[in-house]
Amino acid sequence: MYKHLILLCSLVLLSACKEASLDASQTVATIDELNTAIKNAQPGDHIVLKNGVWKDAAIKFYGEGTEANPISLTAETPGEVTLEGNSSLKLGGSYLHVSGLHFKNGFTTEKAVIRYKINDTTIAYHSRVTDCVIEDFTNPDRDSKNHWIELWGQHNSFDHNYVTGKTNQGPTLRVMLKGNENVNTYHQIKDNHFGPRPRKGGPRAETLQLGDSYTSMTPGYVNVEHNYFERCNGEVEIISSKSNYNTFKNNVFFESEGSLVLRHGNYATIDGNVFIGNDNSEFIGGIRVINTGHWIVNNYFYNLKGNEFRAPLAVMNGIPKSPLNRYNQVTDVVVAHNSFINSKTPWHFGVGANLSQAEVLPASEIRSARAERMVVANNLIYTDAPTASVVKTYDSITGVTFKSNFINVKNTSDYKTDGIITKTLELSEGDNLFAAPQGAQNELHNGFDFDRIDQDLLGNSRDKSNRAGAIVSVSSNHQELLDLSNYGTSWFNTRPAQKTPETITVSTEAQLAEAIKNASQGTTITITPGTYEVDGNYAFAKAVTLQSTATTNRPVITFKNATKGFELQPRAKLKLSNIILKGDKGTDAFATLEKGMGQAYELWLDNVEIDGFKSVLETSKASFADTISIKNSIIKNTARGIQLNKETNDKGDYNAAFVFVEDNNFTNVGMNVLDYYRGGYDESTIGGSLVVRGNTFTQCGAQEKSNILLKTRGIVNVTLAENTFTNNPIKTIAVLWGEKGQEPVDNKTSNSGEIKVVQNLKLKLVY
Amino acid sequence: MYKHLILLCSLVLLSACKEASLDASQTVATIDELNTAIKNAQPGDHIVLKNGVWKDAAIKFYGEGTEANPISLTAETPGEVTLEGNSSLKLGGSYLHVSGLHFKNGFTTEKAVIRYKINDTTIAYHSRVTDCVIEDFTNPDRDSKNHWIELWGQHNSFDHNYVTGKTNQGPTLRVMLKGNENVNTYHQIKDNHFGPRPRKGGPRAETLQLGDSYTSMTPGYVNVEHNYFERCNGEVEIISSKSNYNTFKNNVFFESEGSLVLRHGNYATIDGNVFIGNDNSEFIGGIRVINTGHWIVNNYFYNLKGNEFRAPLAVMNGIPKSPLNRYNQVTDVVVAHNSFINSKTPWHFGVGANLSQAEVLPASEIRSARAERMVVANNLIYTDAPTASVVKTYDSITGVTFKSNFINVKNTSDYKTDGIITKTLELSEGDNLFAAPQGAQNELHNGFDFDRIDQDLLGNSRDKSNRAGAIVSVSSNHQELLDLSNYGTSWFNTRPAQKTPETITVSTEAQLAEAIKNASQGTTITITPGTYEVDGNYAFAKAVTLQSTATTNRPVITFKNATKGFELQPRAKLKLSNIILKGDKGTDAFATLEKGMGQAYELWLDNVEIDGFKSVLETSKASFADTISIKNSIIKNTARGIQLNKETNDKGDYNAAFVFVEDNNFTNVGMNVLDYYRGGYDESTIGGSLVVRGNTFTQCGAQEKSNILLKTRGIVNVTLAENTFTNNPIKTIAVLWGEKGQEPVDNKTSNSGEIKVVQNLKLKLVY
Repeated sequence: MYKHLILLCSLVLLSACKEASLDASQTVATIDELNTAIKNAQPGDHIVLKNGVWKDAAIKFYGEGTEANPISLTAETPGEVTLEGNSSLKLGGSYLHVSGLHFKNGFTTEKAVIRYKINDTTIAYHSRVTDCVIEDFTNPDRDSKNHWIELWGQHNSFDHNYVTGKTNQGPTLRVMLKGNENVNTYHQIKDNHFGPRPRKGGPRAETLQLGDSYTSMTPGYVNVEHNYFERCNGEVEIISSKSNYNTFKNNVFFESEGSLVLRHGNYATIDGNVFIGNDNSEFIGGIRVINTGHWIVNNYFYNLKGNEFRAPLAVMNGIPKSPLNRYNQVTDVVVAHNSFINSKTPWHFGVGANLSQAEVLPASEIRSARAERMVVANNLIYTDAPTASVVKTYDSITGVTFKSNFINVKNTSDYKTDGIITKTLELSEGDNLFAAPQGAQNELHNGFDFDRIDQDLLGNSRDKSNRAGAIVSVSSNHQELLDLSNYGTSWFNTRPAQKTPETITVSTEAQLAEAIKNASQGTTITITPGTYEVDGNYAFAKAVTLQSTATTNRPVITFKNATKGFELQPRAKLKLSNIILKGDKGTDAFATLEKGMGQAYELWLDNVEIDGFKSVLETSKASFADTISIKNSIIKNTARGIQLNKETNDKGDYNAAFVFVEDNNFTNVGMNVLDYYRGGYDESTIGGSLVVRGNTFTQCGAQEKSNILLKTRGIVNVTLAENTFTNNPIKTIAVLWGEKGQEPVDNKTSNSGEIKVVQNLKLKLVY
Repeated sequence: MYKHLILLCSLVLLSACKEASLDASQTVATIDELNTAIKNAQPGDHIVLKNGVWKDAAIKFYGEGTEANPISLTAETPGEVTLEGNSSLKLGGSYLHVSGLHFKNGFTTEKAVIRYKINDTTIAYHSRVTDCVIEDFTNPDRDSKNHWIELWGQHNSFDHNYVTGKTNQGPTLRVMLKGNENVNTYHQIKDNHFGPRPRKGGPRAETLQLGDSYTSMTPGYVNVEHNYFERCNGEVEIISSKSNYNTFKNNVFFESEGSLVLRHGNYATIDGNVFIGNDNSEFIGGIRVINTGHWIVNNYFYNLKGNEFRAPLAVMNGIPKSPLNRYNQVTDVVVAHNSFINSKTPWHFGVGANLSQAEVLPASEIRSARAERMVVANNLIYTDAPTASVVKTYDSITGVTFKSNFINVKNTSDYKTDGIITKTLELSEGDNLFAAPQGAQNELHNGFDFDRIDQDLLGNSRDKSNRAGAIVSVSSNHQELLDLSNYGTSWFNTRPAQKTPETITVSTEAQLAEAIKNASQGTTITITPGTYEVDGNYAFAKAVTLQSTATTNRPVITFKNATKGFELQPRAKLKLSNIILKGDKGTDAFATLEKGMGQAYELWLDNVEIDGFKSVLETSKASFADTISIKNSIIKNTARGIQLNKETNDKGDYNAAFVFVEDNNFTNVGMNVLDYYRGGYDESTIGGSLVVRGNTFTQCGAQEKSNILLKTRGIVNVTLAENTFTNNPIKTIAVLWGEKGQEPVDNKTSNSGEIKVVQNLKLKLVY
């Protein structure tokens, strides 16, 4: 109440002062005019950017405003000022306000698109960027590192912005904490919409990173509040908190493949956040806990299926006397009054325990220090399933105390505790997914300092009728957390209407080429059966389907003198079905660009025949496929198969997220059928995913120097099942990675080498 | 001002409430009465311990007082209640006040003498121990570990106490920070007198330790203010700060052999402390800096001669990505407005740099990470010497910025910076040692957040006439920092009158035995020349001198069937001069007790002849000699020399602090002449100190199995100079340690083996 009073007073004061501001406004149309205006700006001045495209605009906005009279830099009309090409914005000084800008159609060669610092002596304080958009402003080279937003200084705000589409290396937003000028920040990251960030296929793709491993000692005091994280899939950490005293409050994490990770630093408060998964994905996580003194309360975990690092609640083992940049022990963490709704095995303890890998890892990587003095109390677990295994342990968890946690069904975990109590629970559902337990008052645990947890997720007081779980009671007007209009800018439409995709039928080479060239997003090109002799090198940068409606009398496309049959450019989503492709020995059936693969591509083949090529798929170093699916197809007389082996820097990067090879027939593939590589000891990503199921392999691998037919070194998820290997002149079919649970299932081999399993893989340390 | 207003209000409120207190007082005479009184105690109750000796009293003082009405436990008369034998005090609950107790004549077998916790669920909050004394209440086994005061909980006070004489392992006072119940403590350690703590001869002998290496992440918020540290010589750290946000303000460190060390944790404030050395000691240090974000301001360093770890300002190199328990890099540290008066080479940077030891140390011990973003500004250096070398560097220090530091003489350091300015400075001296620079206003540096430094050491405002150094101006009424009556208890006399020592002359065996038996502190026993045939095993536990006034016709004492000639017990300070001792082969001329050597001893021999013994000095494991001095003496026909080799656990302990062997004649010592050992890689202590100078060694070492005559492994300070070695049948005279600067000087050797120097010594890691 007292706080509210202060806030009220401040607001009154602020508006009073605002009325008294000088309010000089000046519209500028060129960068020179802008620079002059900035140079002359006085407290209270408004600098207005004229509507239009500002190309290659490197704005340095400096000045000394005051609390009552900030200096502002705004778009004439919010969203009508686009910063394109090599544009960027730097702020330095005090009380600077920026709003309404739209970064698109380009990327910066600076360290950041928006940087709250001009140089080491001109740093931003009390400054704000609001109502802006950064859209796909990504460096076309995935391996090139930058940030989009860098917060420096103290008391700055980044709020009501929409940010989406970063695909290159580096966190989207990073709070920089080095130097006394940049600690105790009290930065506000609020009300933003962090739109989709695609899977990167390697580490260093967080959406927010607060500090780094050298600032685990540093008081960050960053407030991350009421943001919407939509499918932020860059890597295993949506948010990487690497400093002390940060707060994460009332954020929504929607189907984001990762977790809020307390990676370094201590005493975080994670209060009232909502984590929403779906039935399909095991990659959508919740909160991962490392270090000491965190309070995790009032959070709502909904429909999460993640495990281990990506569990709804993942409590890690630490490294004894950990090096600064590795894993400290979990101590004195409180997890209380959270709700876990329809989340499979919500609590994982001892995550990362890896004593069994002592033979391949140095002592400074062995996570054997168990959580200590941790309290898990007053949580609610609700599931529609008949039973639930609440706790999964990877090590002893005697240091964790469970008190007054309630579940509506039988708890079938191996780990037994009377701190998890089965009780008939009815949920009263609100308008959307939120629900509160009904029925008799639970007997709650009153832990040390638990009076700090005085409100629930929805802001209801816990004073009078406290309950287990995140929500004491639901009323219909509390669904605003899920309303997208409450996040991001006032003007940007994150859900533009989609055109209905067109369908074109072709029956000549020229029509085919023309249709491909002119295809728009979603176009389906139906190829009339017949023979097509083409130059190839067809380029795709959109979702396009090439198909025949005939499954047996399929059109035959023959490539003459082409280096590539189909060129997969960024954003290509190429689907082929019911087609026969014939190549000469110099043609890659499919291939990426050599450079500039700034966005992921997809390739889907169904009932396709690939005959006589140099390779099935050739890729380049920084290229990245989200999905490659080859099904019901024939691959024959081809030198090499699917080549996803160009990320060899051993820093955890790889060339494809998901690869499905199912029900195909490979005959006479000269070298390897697949080379899918990921190097470096890294745990930040899905780590690649391969399904090889139901195929037949015959006479393949005769020229393969490595003597391995299916090369999958370092790929984390590999299924090798129900395949038939006959007469392949090769020593080894595949080498599976036992520690990751890989094992061959129901394969038949005859005169074809062996399938090996190695338990532990020695990988180069990345950190 | 606002703060003061609040304080005032609180005090008014408090006294108002106090008047309204219940004020029930009850005097108890036995532990049972006490326990009953505690059990029944209500807020406002006073429990009074009856004057007298309370033996083996294990007091558990628990209860729930209130801020207005604490529960108190006091002595009937302060100082007249002595807790003796196996006594201890534990507190648990809220608002408990203890005063006037005197712990002496015993030691506790508990973990602490005074512990602010009864068990894990009964911890003290808002509780206070004041006006108490712990005097020599030390465990007789040096290797046995405990604390005297353990602070747990939050908001507790330890103030106005006198504490002295801990000699066993373990910090005198330790703040325990594990668990949320024990962090953010706001403990007050104020107005105490920490009296002498003797050299321990091994690590783990801090006077204060705030946390441990596992709490470097923990907010301590301990306030250490206005304490007097008198000759706290336990080890290299007087105070070991191992947590965050601790404050050290207005303390005096008087001739204490160590430093205030920021060992772990960050963001300490060290403001307005006084460090006083003397002309003789190089062991008296100042502040040693590790970690990030500290503010070191307004401190006064007077007459300090320490180097490296013990420099007035020692800034260490860190270990890159340091393990949790080792050395983090120094970053963002501010050292401003301090005064360094007559302190030799006050600033040492890169201390601990040890890349040169990479061959004997693992990478996780190599301190190569240099200080970064450190600011050293507005400091004052004043010396009576004609020039001064201000800066000593052990590594590059490009990460340190020097601004507006002033010195009164030419700076002759190799390191050059225009941030250290020579300027004529006159000091105006106050009553005591404090002095402020006079003359023209210096041009000061205005660093980031320097407005935090708004007062000087003496509380003067810096607003109007700011100056470099700790003191803006001195007025005569500001000398209270050095007045001992402002520290410690209201009743204990730390300076009792000493009796004049007596002198006794003896001329028979019986008189000699009787005189030794009855000797009081300081007694001199003069032995008439003649022959004394005695049983030996004479015991000493005080300062006693045995002497003859005749330097040539010396008395001869012959021991028959004695195991020991003279037994050195705790506190023995035995001096012999002008005496001949003759033994049989089974007698140790001097020997300690086997156990219970709870305090150090000293042995001084001058013009003594030792002939025909089993050893010169035999010692036991936990025994410790402060000084052993053998000069102008003859040692002959004896099996072994000085045996200081029983601390072989390789944890950094050793058996003697200072050993002087000068101008003696050793003939026919069968095995080694000296065995002085210190094992384990430890840097917490002086590390032993040996001077072997001006001696002759003849026919020694024939039976020594190690083939080394003077064994000094692991001893840090060794002088081997001007000795003559003739016809000693041994392979090696000594092995010196090059890295510690040891080298033989002007020794003559003839048919006596060699003196070796090894640069780096491989030692077992202790931590």
